[in-house]
Amino acid sequence: MSATDDLLRNNTAYAEAFDKGDLPGPPAKGVAVVSCMDARVVPSRILGLEEGDAHIIKNAGGVVTDDVIRSLAVSQHLMGSREVIVIQHTDCGLVRLTDDAFAERMEEAAGQRPDWSLQAFTDLEQSVRDGVERIRTSPFLPNTESVRGFVYDVATGRLAEVG
Amino acid sequence: MSATDDLLRNNTAYAEAFDKGDLPGPPAKGVAVVSCMDARVVPSRILGLEEGDAHIIKNAGGVVTDDVIRSLAVSQHLMGSREVIVIQHTDCGLVRLTDDAFAERMEEAAGQRPDWSLQAFTDLEQSVRDGVERIRTSPFLPNTESVRGFVYDVATGRLAEVG
Repeated sequence: MSATDDLLRNNTAYAEAFDKGDLPGPPAKGVAVVSCMDARVVPSRILGLEEGDAHIIKNAGGVVTDDVIRSLAVSQHLMGSREVIVIQHTDCGLVRLTDDAFAERMEEAAGQRPDWSLQAFTDLEQSVRDGVERIRTSPFLPNTESVRGFVYDVATGRLAEVG
Repeated sequence: MSATDDLLRNNTAYAEAFDKGDLPGPPAKGVAVVSCMDARVVPSRILGLEEGDAHIIKNAGGVVTDDVIRSLAVSQHLMGSREVIVIQHTDCGLVRLTDDAFAERMEEAAGQRPDWSLQAFTDLEQSVRDGVERIRTSPFLPNTESVRGFVYDVATGRLAEVG
């Protein structure tokens, strides 16, 4: 049995106990969270969120790419969210390789280079600052009064704000 | 007090009870999940995932953009994941507007059109199939034996596989 089949059995149990079928689409807390896809970074638990509370956007690194801006534009323009929380984390895989080294690895494995880059970074706090700044200065995001950035420590479960 | 401040207080409680500080980066179940940022779609609950189990990638719609391919390439090449689960959901905001209508709305609000598109869709199941296909045929993703697509019903909590 695949891991996917295993997880689908968990869904059967979730659906049997499900009692949240009337929730609206717009997030109840008016918050969008941008974070890393890392398996240890579970925003619903880290921030104590229930179903319906907040938009969660996750990609490799929690870096603010065009696709994150697109998602935040939907969140703010179509769903009325007003606050953004950016969370990157300690022990992230994106600090271990450069964009060039990853592109070379892709060329070896796939016979071609992707037209996107790894989005590697070396300074974790600076990467959070860059993400916050990119959100604050995007012409497509009207709600930038509360855009705050954090480092999540995977060893302690604690968020530390990046000033 | 902002919603963000409220959520940060929840983090204090999470960190105080935290006992998962030794988890490795690669996901224990070898699975990456691609789904929508929607606040009602919480993969850790829908699939019964614990911290450390699976990569979670979320964007507006759960559509397979270049940024999702980048994230999956990191997941497979650097973190060894082998299975992908794509989850889109009923009552998604991306069916309510066309790419053009959204671009016009951005032009009105921001004075310019973004160089990304909304990624709107009209047929939910076809959008899931398109996402699965894009993953299966990407030259940058070596592990495509188990790429499965689902529709999550926000009214019932249940996943239905898209064949």
